[in-house]
Amino acid sequence: MSSANLSIGVDIGGTKILAALVDEAGNVSGQVHRDTPNHDVAGIERAIAEVIHELSGGNEGLPVGIGAAGWMDRKGRNVLFSPHLSWRNEPVRDRLMKLVGHEVTLVNDADAAGWAEHRFGAGQGESDMVCLTLGTGIGGAVILGGQVHRGKSGIAGEFGHQVMVPGGHRCACGNRGCWEQYASGNALGREGAELVRSKSPVAFRLREAVGDNPEAVTGAIVTKLAIEGDPACADLISDMGEWLGLGISNLVSVLDPGTIVIGGGLGAASKELVAKAEETYRRTLSGRGYRPFAKISQAQLGPASGLIGAADLARFNQQQ
Amino acid sequence: MSSANLSIGVDIGGTKILAALVDEAGNVSGQVHRDTPNHDVAGIERAIAEVIHELSGGNEGLPVGIGAAGWMDRKGRNVLFSPHLSWRNEPVRDRLMKLVGHEVTLVNDADAAGWAEHRFGAGQGESDMVCLTLGTGIGGAVILGGQVHRGKSGIAGEFGHQVMVPGGHRCACGNRGCWEQYASGNALGREGAELVRSKSPVAFRLREAVGDNPEAVTGAIVTKLAIEGDPACADLISDMGEWLGLGISNLVSVLDPGTIVIGGGLGAASKELVAKAEETYRRTLSGRGYRPFAKISQAQLGPASGLIGAADLARFNQQQ
Repeated sequence: MSSANLSIGVDIGGTKILAALVDEAGNVSGQVHRDTPNHDVAGIERAIAEVIHELSGGNEGLPVGIGAAGWMDRKGRNVLFSPHLSWRNEPVRDRLMKLVGHEVTLVNDADAAGWAEHRFGAGQGESDMVCLTLGTGIGGAVILGGQVHRGKSGIAGEFGHQVMVPGGHRCACGNRGCWEQYASGNALGREGAELVRSKSPVAFRLREAVGDNPEAVTGAIVTKLAIEGDPACADLISDMGEWLGLGISNLVSVLDPGTIVIGGGLGAASKELVAKAEETYRRTLSGRGYRPFAKISQAQLGPASGLIGAADLARFNQQQ
Repeated sequence: MSSANLSIGVDIGGTKILAALVDEAGNVSGQVHRDTPNHDVAGIERAIAEVIHELSGGNEGLPVGIGAAGWMDRKGRNVLFSPHLSWRNEPVRDRLMKLVGHEVTLVNDADAAGWAEHRFGAGQGESDMVCLTLGTGIGGAVILGGQVHRGKSGIAGEFGHQVMVPGGHRCACGNRGCWEQYASGNALGREGAELVRSKSPVAFRLREAVGDNPEAVTGAIVTKLAIEGDPACADLISDMGEWLGLGISNLVSVLDPGTIVIGGGLGAASKELVAKAEETYRRTLSGRGYRPFAKISQAQLGPASGLIGAADLARFNQQQ
C-alpha cells in the first residue's frame, strides 16, 4: 500500500459506522468500526468526527469522503432526507466541516459504492454503468461518461422505488409495488416469513431455523439456507432473481449502460441470484437479438466499497 | 428567418417523410411531404435523397440531419433495427451519404424531437430533461448535461418498453406489460375498442362514431371525442394519464431530470392527459415532500420537432 495520496473514507450505515484509510489504488488500511448512535444527529456527527480524527493521525490535510444512506443535494451540502438517520433538509456538510476542521465530501452511500466498483472493481474501464446495492432495499448508482450522474436535485439512481407492480406490496416510501419490495433482503425476509406462516411442509428447514417464528425470518437466513442447499429457500432466491432481472431490463431500456454491477450483502452472497437475474434479463430485454446485451457482474469490493468510493470521490474533489 | 446557417432536417415516419430547411433559431421553411415507400428500403433511401436534393436547391454544403424511428448505433452509422421500416443492422448512413453526395447525420426520431424541445421548445435552458413522444407508442429522449444521452449501444431512452405490469398486455416487442401498452395512442385505441365491444351504454358516442365497429377505433378518435366532451372517452384519457404519471415517476426516480416534456400527436392533443399525468406523478414520486418536483410541460414544437432536432444536430456535428 502506497502511503502517498491517502484519503479517509467513512460509510455511515443504519447500525454501524465503517471507516478506513484508502490509497489511490483503492487499497484499504486501518479500518475502524463504531456503532451508529441511531436517531441522534449530534451523536452521529460527533462519532464521525472522532473516527476521522483517529484515522488522520495528526495529518489534517487528508481528503475526507463520507457516504451515507440519504439524499444529498447536487452539491453535497445538504442532506434532504435520510431513511435511517434523522437528517431532514439539514446543512450536514457544513456542520461536519466545523467538527472535523476542514473540507469533507458528502455523498450518497450507493453512489459511493458504485463509484468504487467503477474505479477499482467490477466496473473498471466501463464509462457507462449502473450499480445496484442489494441490502435491506435497493441502492443505486448511475455512472455515465465516467462520472456519477447525480441528477438535477442530486437524487438520481433511486431505482428501488420504481413501481414495478401497481397496487402491489406497500413500501416504506408510501407507495405500493416498488421494485425493492420484490428484490431486496427485506423482500426475501417477507417471503420467507409468509412461507413459515403458511406452515408449508416445503419450508421445514426454514421453520426449524427460526423456531416456527415468522417474525424471526430475515433475508440473511433465507440466503444462508439457500446456499446450504435448502430447495424452498433456493426457490425464494430464484423468484427474487426474476424480479431483479426484470428491473434490470427496465434500467437498460432507459439508460443503455455497458455493465450492471450487482453488489450489497445480498448480491455478494448469492451467485445463483445474479445468474437468475441475468437469465431473466436476457429473456426480457426489449429488442433482444437486435442489440448487444449489457454485461451483468457481481460486485468485487465487498462491504468496504462504500468507504472506498467516498474516499476516492473526496480525493477527486480535492484535486479539482 | 435568417438565410445564414441553414440546415436540412428530414423526419422519416412509418407513413410519411417530412423535410424542411431549418435555421439556427429553429425556424422552419420550405417544408415538403412524401409518402414513405413502406418496406422498400431502396425506395425509402431514394425518396430521402430526392427530398434532400430538392431542399438544398443547388447548395450542396448544407448540413443534413435525418431522424428515423429505429435504433442507431452510438455513432449513428448503422441502423440496428427499425420497427416500421425494413432496416436490420445495415450501414444506412454510408448508403445515404453515397446517394446524397455528402455528410449526413442519422439519429433516432424521438432523440431528434427531444433535442428540438431542448433547444427551441419546452425544455429551453434545461440541461437535464426527458422528452416523451406519445404516438402509436412512446418515443423517448434523455438529455443530460445539455447533450443527448445515447447510451453504450446508442439505444438509451427506450422508455416505452419498461415493464410496468408483469404479465400484462402483449407488446409488439415480444414482452408483456410494457409501458406503451398502457400509455400511447395504440393503448387508447385498444381500450376504446374494448368499450365498443362491451356494448357499454356509456360508450354510445364512441360506438356511433365508429358504426359499432371496434376495429375502427383509434387513439385519435378517442382523443377527439374526449376533447368534444364525451365523458367515456374523457375517462379513457384520464386512465391513460394515470399510467403516464406512474411511468414518469419511475423515470424521475432513475434520472432525476429538471423537466419532463410530453410531446407527440397525443401529448399535443390533450391538455387533460398531461394534467392527469402530472397529478399522478405528484402523488406517486417516491420521496415527495423531501425533494423538488421535476417540471412537467407539454411540448411546444408540434409535428416538425423531429426534423428541427435532426437539422440542428446535423449543424452541431458539422461545427465539430
